[in-house]
Formats: sequence, C-alpha cells, structure tokens
Amino acid sequence: MADAVVSGSSPSAISEMNQARIAQELYKRGTLSRAQIAKALGLTAPAISKLAGRMIEDGLVRETGDMPGLGHRRSIGMQLESSRYRVIGVKFARSRVQFGIFDLAGNPLQQSELPPVSEQSIPQTVQAVKDHIQQALDHDRSIVAVGIAVPGPYLRHEGQIALVTSMQGWRGVNFIQSFGQAFSVPTFIEQDARAGALAQSLFAPQNSSPNLAYYLVGEGVGLGVIEQGRLINGERGGATELGHISVDVNGRACECGNRGCLERYCSAVAIHKAMCQPPYEGLFPEAEHLSHAAACQMLFYRAAQGDEAASRLVAQTAACVGYGCVTIINAFNPSHIIIGDIVAGAGQTLLETVQRIVAERALPELKAQTEISLSALPADATLMGAAAVAVSHFLQDPTHFASILRQRQVAKNKPPTTPPKNG
Amino acid sequence: MADAVVSGSSPSAISEMNQARIAQELYKRGTLSRAQIAKALGLTAPAISKLAGRMIEDGLVRETGDMPGLGHRRSIGMQLESSRYRVIGVKFARSRVQFGIFDLAGNPLQQSELPPVSEQSIPQTVQAVKDHIQQALDHDRSIVAVGIAVPGPYLRHEGQIALVTSMQGWRGVNFIQSFGQAFSVPTFIEQDARAGALAQSLFAPQNSSPNLAYYLVGEGVGLGVIEQGRLINGERGGATELGHISVDVNGRACECGNRGCLERYCSAVAIHKAMCQPPYEGLFPEAEHLSHAAACQMLFYRAAQGDEAASRLVAQTAACVGYGCVTIINAFNPSHIIIGDIVAGAGQTLLETVQRIVAERALPELKAQTEISLSALPADATLMGAAAVAVSHFLQDPTHFASILRQRQVAKNKPPTTPPKNG
Repeated sequence: MADAVVSGSSPSAISEMNQARIAQELYKRGTLSRAQIAKALGLTAPAISKLAGRMIEDGLVRETGDMPGLGHRRSIGMQLESSRYRVIGVKFARSRVQFGIFDLAGNPLQQSELPPVSEQSIPQTVQAVKDHIQQALDHDRSIVAVGIAVPGPYLRHEGQIALVTSMQGWRGVNFIQSFGQAFSVPTFIEQDARAGALAQSLFAPQNSSPNLAYYLVGEGVGLGVIEQGRLINGERGGATELGHISVDVNGRACECGNRGCLERYCSAVAIHKAMCQPPYEGLFPEAEHLSHAAACQMLFYRAAQGDEAASRLVAQTAACVGYGCVTIINAFNPSHIIIGDIVAGAGQTLLETVQRIVAERALPELKAQTEISLSALPADATLMGAAAVAVSHFLQDPTHFASILRQRQVAKNKPPTTPPKNG
Repeated sequence: MADAVVSGSSPSAISEMNQARIAQELYKRGTLSRAQIAKALGLTAPAISKLAGRMIEDGLVRETGDMPGLGHRRSIGMQLESSRYRVIGVKFARSRVQFGIFDLAGNPLQQSELPPVSEQSIPQTVQAVKDHIQQALDHDRSIVAVGIAVPGPYLRHEGQIALVTSMQGWRGVNFIQSFGQAFSVPTFIEQDARAGALAQSLFAPQNSSPNLAYYLVGEGVGLGVIEQGRLINGERGGATELGHISVDVNGRACECGNRGCLERYCSAVAIHKAMCQPPYEGLFPEAEHLSHAAACQMLFYRAAQGDEAASRLVAQTAACVGYGCVTIINAFNPSHIIIGDIVAGAGQTLLETVQRIVAERALPELKAQTEISLSALPADATLMGAAAVAVSHFLQDPTHFASILRQRQVAKNKPPTTPPKNG
C-alpha cells in the first residue's frame, strides 16, 4: 500500500469510489461525454476511459451515440442505465402502508396500498409486507434493493420507532430484525421525512441545493434536513423531530412528554380532531366517519369553495405550519423548504399564509433567501422517498448493485431448488 | 494522474492529507509509536515512516524517546509539537471583547480584556482589536493563525452578523472585510457558540462524541452543534440559532421579528431585566448599576445563600434553559449537551432543574442517553473557542501552518524593511 493511498483503501476500492462518482454525475446531469465527466471530476481522460469501459461491461452505463463535442472533436454520450435497475419502496404511516416499484429515476412502475392498519393488525401487516416484497422480488429480477420509510422518531441503530402518536403499537416492531436481512437484496430503513428529503433531492431536478428541508405535514409532523449534502441524523436518529419541538411550552400535552408540540396543532390528526370539537363541532358532521386524510381533503375542498368555518380552520392550521417554518429556518437555515404530505393538499392558500408568517417572524437576511414551496413530486413524496433511500445507496456503491443484478439474473436462469430446465 | 487518484488530487496533496490525519491522531491521543499510527490510520509502516520523517523535518512532530512497544519490539514515541505553534483567539460579545494567546492544546499563555464597548465605540473597538492582534503578531513569531468568535446569527459568507439583540451597532461591522486579510497569518471567523462547541471537542478530552452541542447561555443564547463530527452551519451560517427559536409563539416580542424567542427568557440580558422589573423590582436595588454578567453573578450568589426571591428567579430561568435543552434534543439529538457562559454560573441548582425538565419533556429513549453537563473548561469556553477555530484549521492542514511558521521566523531574522543586523 503506497504512501498516497487514502484511508487504507485499496486501488480497487478507489476505482469503485470513482465509479460511484461517475454514476452520481450521470444521474444528476443526464448524458455526458467522457471529456465532460473527466472535467467535472478532475480525472484524466485515460482514467475515465478505463472506468467507463468497466462500467459499460458491468451494465451500469451505456453509450448513446454521437453528441455535440467540446470543441471540434466528436464525442460519444454516456448515460446511467437508470431503467435497468429497480427498487422497491415501502412507506409505513400510522394507519396506511403503501408499496411501490420504481426505477432509479423515481419513475413508478407499480404502486399499491395494503389494507388499513389497526393497532391489532400490526403483526399481520408486517408479515403481509414481507410477503408482498418477496413476491415482487421473485417476479421481477431487476429489483436490486428495498427502501423502507417509517414514522419518526426512528432509532436507526436499534431499528425501532421511539414514539408513534395515536398508534403506539408500531413501537413493538423492530424494523431491522423484521426486514434488515429478510430478502436476497439489501434493505434500507429511514425515517419518513428524511426519505422525503432524499426524494426531493434525487427525483425533483429543480431541488439542487445542498441545504434542503422536507417538511412532512401528514398524520404526523416530520422533517428531513439535508445539510451540506448530507442528512442530519443526530446520535441515534432522533434529530430533526420538528413535530415534537414545542411552539408553546405551556401548551397542549403530547404523548411524547412535551407540551405544545407542533404536531398537536397542525398534523392531519390534530386538524381532524379540531373538526369534531368546539368551536367546529357539528359543522363537519361527516368528519367523524372519515379517515384523517379524507377529513382534511374535505376541509380543504370546503375552504376552497368559500366556506367560512373551513377557511378559518385552514388559516389557523396554516399559521401553525408557518411557525414550524420559522423554527426550521432558525434551527437549520436551509435554502429551500418543501412542504409535503396530506396538509400540503390545502394548496396555495396554505402556502400564502405560511409565507406571511415567515415574512413577519424570520430574520430578514434569512427569510429573503429561503424558498418555500409545496412538493412538486407527482406521487406521494414519502413513498417515493422510500425508493429514494434505496437509490441513494445504489449511487454510493453502484458496482455492488451491478453484481447483485448479475447474481439475481443468473439465479433466475438457474433456480437453485429445482434442476435447470434449459440446462 | 492515475485512475486511482481521488478528486483530482496530486500525490503531494494526498501526502498532506495523510500528514493532517497523523496530526489529528496525535492531537487526540497524545504520544503514539509509528506502528500505532499505522494501525489507527490503515497505512503501511513504510508509508508512516516517510510521512513522519517529513513531519519531523517540518517541525510538526517530535520524537519522545522509547515507549512500551506493541509486542516485544522497541518503539519510539511521537508527539505533535503542540507548544511550538500558537494562535490568537478574540471573542466579541455584545459589550465585551476578550483576547488571548493559546498553544495548540488550548493552554492560555496570555489573556486580556479590552475596554467595555458601547454602540458608539464599536468602530474604535474594531480598530483597537486590529492593533492588538498586530502587536501580538509582531511580538510573538510563533503565532500562526487568528480565530475570531462573534455573536450569531453570523452570515458566514457575507461576514456580517444578522442581528445582535440589544446591540444592533455590531451589524455595521463586516468581519471578513475588517479582519479576513488584515494580517500576515490566516484569520478565521466563527459564530460564538460554534466556536465553543469546537473548544469543547478539542480542548476537553472527555468530550469525544461526534455528536456534541455547546449551549451558550450568556448575554445572548446560542448553540453550536457538531453532528457526525462536523459543525452544522446551514446555507448561510444561520443554523442552530436556538436563541431565536420560539418557546411560545404568542410570547414576548423579539427584535428578530419572532415572538417567544428563548433568548427573551433566559439570557443574562433577560435575567438582568427581570431583576429590575416587577415582581423583582426593588429586591436587587444595586442591579441597575451592574453589567449583565455582574448582575447575574450577584443573583446566583444570593440564591446560593438561600435568598427566596433570588432562588425563585433562578429556578424560573433554569426551567427555560431546560426547555431549550428539550428543543436541542428534538432538533439535533446530540449525545452530550454542554451548558456554558454566564448563566452556567448558577451551577448545580441550574443543572438539576434542567435535568428535571428534560426528564419530564424529552422522549424517554433519547433523554436516557443524552448527557447534560456544565462546561468544565477552565477559561471562558467561547474565548477558548475562538482559539479552537484556529486550531481546527491548523489540524486540517498542518503542513501549511508549518510553512507559515518557517516564513515568520525567517522574516524575524531578516526584517524586510531594515537591513539585517546580524547579516
């Protein structure tokens, strides 16, 4: 090992790392020539040629024919084989489990929802999800990883959720034990809002900032922060738990032990509860029979139609979402806050109130340069986030996943349990 | 440039990076043999010998004679030349400017305080600090860097403080323009609580966690968070501004635009104000004539003596410091929160109240593994922090600072403006 070798890495590890950098560059920028990649990564043309040859051979990259070159030279474009590899995304929420198969670019190839979950049915749900994943893996040999998004605070080393307000049964599930080694492909588990932040960063090309916050306002309130290009986790994965940051230390008691938690004011659960209590009691009589998501949808529809009570409750909720944005700015100073999930369904009226609150309460120097928008992702950002968790691991170590694909395709042609049919 | 080269780095850049890693390892662990360093860094013995030889020649490392070897082999200990290099630390607070010279281990060699600052005297103060630094540099040729700590929110790219509650004049100072290129040695500027976090991490050997929060409760309230070994800055340096995170969105108005900012309840300024207002008005008649720091000291002394009103005010303040800790845990999930600066002077009684509030309000899984303590650093943690800012840069690029030292010592022997005396 030479003096110049980094961190005890072998030359092959450095080659793998450089292949990962090429994959990331192609993922971000689409089609590039070898010369463009060499320039972007500060590597020589011969080095890139060697690496690119290996990646083409491994099925990670393909050539796309001639493209306008730099200067007068002809050059051949290269692309990442994004549609050759697939990942499974699973999103666990309190009462919903969603499932999807995506390619590396986040295009959904299949999406489905499992039956609603109750406290009692959690163990069966976990088994059903495992079965569902296994079936998909058996059926589609191009799947190379599974990403799972779970509500926070998720203790990432222990594999358990520390608290799920209004659905404590989830605390009994150890996700690492249940899913970590369950399949023939790697499985990655992430807190849901962090998964959403990854989805925004990977799948929404307009979100290129290295300082990005995904503000999940759904059944719970969560936050995922990418700071200097990296997710903030904290010691055990309990960081960025915005839903349990107090906006009023003398406020409503929360199951977490704290008072005045933001989640108690603007989650879909809190909105649904408010619709069934004074002063709104009786104004939304059907609300009691709806799911949290459906009740919120009804409320937002009524507000859009000009219903006064509905508009008042939406405005009140939106102000609280705004207080959360002010806290996000003071705590994390992202360049962009993206609001997503159920409550983002209130749309422009919500966004305008949030922007007004931020204009009033955040430091002028910071608010002026903080973009706030609603999620523009076509599908549910957190389900896409579950896929994004898997894709982000793919991009860190593409050669590993290329070898998984090869193994799975060999296994398909030669099933180990029965004699080969076309042997 | 070979295929295996990282990020376009030349072999000499990689050698420098490995020298930095050796310096960091020696800094953290004290005396080590070449074999121990090789093991810790995953480098071969010949590689380490070559690098160590270079570092000894450059005056970065010295041999300390025989030490107990690994196995039966004799081995020679190596140490970083921590006392050979010095840095200047300058701490700007609202009304105080402190100055110190430290060695790399954070040992203070000289400390002084400039005259108290008023809104009117800020420009003169800036000039006086420049003169003071220049004099120290002229006098002591072993100084290789200057670290400056300023109150937050500090906009790190612009060089300006976005807001200094109760001392807005500081906003007119551009620290990068005033100090960035003013001296013959590099100058580094950091938000004060972040500097304090660096000091805790570098100079207090018990704080080895990569997830550490320094909670500055002084004239302002600030926070510096080291997460996964790296300071959290946000897009423009405005992250971790705990003092302006609201603990009551309907609470006291703050100069920042927000309401219920933590700083309005437990900073030294807020405590001093409370001492002069109902229901405490008249109980501390001398308080009006004291500085914020002195008023707090008096209050804490009275409380320790059993004075009931003083104890009540301290308890009330401590609860607010505790609410801040709960927010820190939910936002950043550090393994260790270190409380420092003026208000930490309330001592054990403060710590006990903080720990009770955290026990009541933080998630059981997180609070059980979050250590909370008062700063154990001998000197003012933020002044040491200013030095730590410089030291952390030294450790990232020691060869650069070794060359600065050589240049400064040559310049001393051969002053460029006058003919050499001993030529």
